[in-house]
Amino acid sequence: MIVFLKDLFNNPLLYENKKIFLKGWIRNCRFQKKLFFIDFNDGTFINDLQIVCKKDKNFFLEKIKKKLQIGASIEIEGFLVKNFKINDIFELEAEKINILGSSSFEYLIQPKNHSKAFLRKIPHLRLRTKIFGSVFRIRSAVFLAIHEFFKNEDFLLTNTPIITVNDGEGAGDLFQITTLNLEKLVLTKDKKIDYLKDFFGRKTFLSVTGQLELEALATSFNKVYSLGPIFRADNSNTIKHVAEFWMLEVEMAFSNLEKNMEIIERMLKKVVKSCLLTNQNDLKFLDENESPGLIKKLNEFIGLKSFPKIKYKEAMDILIKSGVDFEFKPFHGSDFYTEHEKYLTEVHFKSPVFIIDWPKEIKAFYMKINPDKKTVACVDLLVPFVGELVGGSQREENLEILKNRMKELNISSENLEWYLDLRRFGSCVHSGFGLGFERLLIYLTGVENIRDVIAFPLSSKSINF
Amino acid sequence: MIVFLKDLFNNPLLYENKKIFLKGWIRNCRFQKKLFFIDFNDGTFINDLQIVCKKDKNFFLEKIKKKLQIGASIEIEGFLVKNFKINDIFELEAEKINILGSSSFEYLIQPKNHSKAFLRKIPHLRLRTKIFGSVFRIRSAVFLAIHEFFKNEDFLLTNTPIITVNDGEGAGDLFQITTLNLEKLVLTKDKKIDYLKDFFGRKTFLSVTGQLELEALATSFNKVYSLGPIFRADNSNTIKHVAEFWMLEVEMAFSNLEKNMEIIERMLKKVVKSCLLTNQNDLKFLDENESPGLIKKLNEFIGLKSFPKIKYKEAMDILIKSGVDFEFKPFHGSDFYTEHEKYLTEVHFKSPVFIIDWPKEIKAFYMKINPDKKTVACVDLLVPFVGELVGGSQREENLEILKNRMKELNISSENLEWYLDLRRFGSCVHSGFGLGFERLLIYLTGVENIRDVIAFPLSSKSINF
Repeated sequence: MIVFLKDLFNNPLLYENKKIFLKGWIRNCRFQKKLFFIDFNDGTFINDLQIVCKKDKNFFLEKIKKKLQIGASIEIEGFLVKNFKINDIFELEAEKINILGSSSFEYLIQPKNHSKAFLRKIPHLRLRTKIFGSVFRIRSAVFLAIHEFFKNEDFLLTNTPIITVNDGEGAGDLFQITTLNLEKLVLTKDKKIDYLKDFFGRKTFLSVTGQLELEALATSFNKVYSLGPIFRADNSNTIKHVAEFWMLEVEMAFSNLEKNMEIIERMLKKVVKSCLLTNQNDLKFLDENESPGLIKKLNEFIGLKSFPKIKYKEAMDILIKSGVDFEFKPFHGSDFYTEHEKYLTEVHFKSPVFIIDWPKEIKAFYMKINPDKKTVACVDLLVPFVGELVGGSQREENLEILKNRMKELNISSENLEWYLDLRRFGSCVHSGFGLGFERLLIYLTGVENIRDVIAFPLSSKSINF
Repeated sequence: MIVFLKDLFNNPLLYENKKIFLKGWIRNCRFQKKLFFIDFNDGTFINDLQIVCKKDKNFFLEKIKKKLQIGASIEIEGFLVKNFKINDIFELEAEKINILGSSSFEYLIQPKNHSKAFLRKIPHLRLRTKIFGSVFRIRSAVFLAIHEFFKNEDFLLTNTPIITVNDGEGAGDLFQITTLNLEKLVLTKDKKIDYLKDFFGRKTFLSVTGQLELEALATSFNKVYSLGPIFRADNSNTIKHVAEFWMLEVEMAFSNLEKNMEIIERMLKKVVKSCLLTNQNDLKFLDENESPGLIKKLNEFIGLKSFPKIKYKEAMDILIKSGVDFEFKPFHGSDFYTEHEKYLTEVHFKSPVFIIDWPKEIKAFYMKINPDKKTVACVDLLVPFVGELVGGSQREENLEILKNRMKELNISSENLEWYLDLRRFGSCVHSGFGLGFERLLIYLTGVENIRDVIAFPLSSKSINF
């Protein structure tokens, strides 16, 4: 029976002084005169297990010594013992070691601090380092914690289409999808593409949001969410942007903006709390090696009474009156830049902050117009270190107002008659939000670059898998 | 405080004779001389709650009577009472009803049996019917049951890239992704596309499998899985094929084909068992209205001792010797057609069956070559009613054999050096499988057409969202 390191470290007494079998990889090895040490890991836990081989006892060692290289995979048989000399740490006294898969001096993951820029060039191998190990164990746990939260709240898990005819109404630049042979394209007389010949018979894109479809699901099932991949063909090569990422989208019938914020805050606190509990060891490693103060920050987050809520107008006033010499001068009607978000969350409020009631001109067509007719009932949650983490709104449920708004903005209803149907038949007040999953991970892991919380990240001019 | 139907029906005694508030939709309404009945549903439960309005008591009724139309959304205040005349059923005696969103005679979902073909034309509204309600509540629960299984088994949840440069090595036809302006394409001198100008600087596709990347994750984290969307540009417009679907992919280090099958079987039984428990009411509805014998079938499935395992060769012999006049004559070396799968699972074995050790010619390059050098260590799980539900294999972990196999098949290693690295550094025996999530849903719901277990299904020449 193979023992996994996770089980072994979580309950070493169960295995103490017993013969156990392990399979995994050599992370490091050191020869001494009479002893030979291996730092062993099977990928299930942050800490390595030290394997001790006594040379006199282990006649087999000489035979395989040359193959005991960093990166090799091995199977081990031995006894788990407590080392009373070194902090009562548990280690394995090896009886037998077999090489399963060799390594070589060309193996790029050595037991030292590689730069993240270097590791980004070898995503298939960087996953074997401690830091990426921690990050991706947290990623897995947070994904599941989100599902658990919504399960307990009786939300229905749904999936919205990835391929769509909807151009997202300006939510971002789009990838086009086609099966046409681009090298042999024949244009029509008026120099257009004949999309009737394309796979779907129409021009299609990768979805930038599943929100509109989620509204159909919410007016059928009441409270729904989805957690799926989302695509942006923006050329912005910042540490916060990639072409493919995962997004949590939530939609609730019979719910207004207030309810929206209540769920956002409760969900985030629950997920952070769950992470602190589930990923103690990974967070400890990241706190010590990557982001000092991480655990304190997360504990403060869940201890916050409630996130402050201010109107866009007030937030803009704070920035304008701050006296700070921003690179981009803040003014009423403009969006917030990173420096503004930083000032609001890290200097002024020193906490996450909900910003509501934005000018309708800089927000999407489907948002509920406020009684002032100038602003919309929407919310952005800004968070220290991350910036915008969540964006949500109450949706316009009034058919005539929505149609007028679309006319104003020159949005054709051709592809959206079904969306208008949701207002024609049993319309209701409803709200929802989207949360960039990787941005939440940036907050939770303290890792700064979004490319380091995605196993195989994709950016403009950068794809290798 | 709003009460949800799910909570009300699961524990009616908690609400009996109490005043409660509800928000939801009118599914049907009937006028009688002194009474008025509404079948009410808020989307959280299969059964409607009957709302009883006594005309004399409810002076408000006359005012809103015209607006009480099927499909309208309403809020209700009233008392939950037991109707001793009709099987002690619970119903609500309404005190007050408000129309929140009206409906009209044009509303297409009427309280009668609409054909599925008709409903497929209005996916945004069909979700409000009982049958689609059941199907999508099951979809949600099964999704979560899969996550729960792998969480309990200590697998790491991961995500593999959707956009890829990998052409999938024949796993299916591909969608191309581009940001080039197709109407203004300029070809190079040798009539090629200059992909340096495309978003990623290379030709890119929608992924047909994340398996190769999962192998990198498994050799880092030991046991991993992913559950994400997968795309096929096949033109086959059958009831089992769509262009976009979800796939569970699993990969395990230090595991052979036998272990693979053990996990597949245990996982499926666990998920079916969980569905029988969680979705009792939905399954009962489907059993009575869509697929007679469904619950019996599922109970038999979890009661099976263990699925039979036979070699491809034996399966082919069974077909050849069956004496059945198949449309496609079975012969050694050919793949199985639907009629063959049906014979094996529904006539011969009357159970799911693992078919292992297929001829290497009809399987993928990465599968482990068996000692006979003719077959590969792979498995398809065929299931009655569904056909192929799972496909998996042990992967070739030997660098030289894998390289030779790629050479034989003319597969360039240019994009796959990273994949070969997994064999260069700490290679190990490893196995994995893929399960078509919607095919599992077809089995669990008894719904025949894959377009009816996906909220917004996409097929060749068919996209509206």
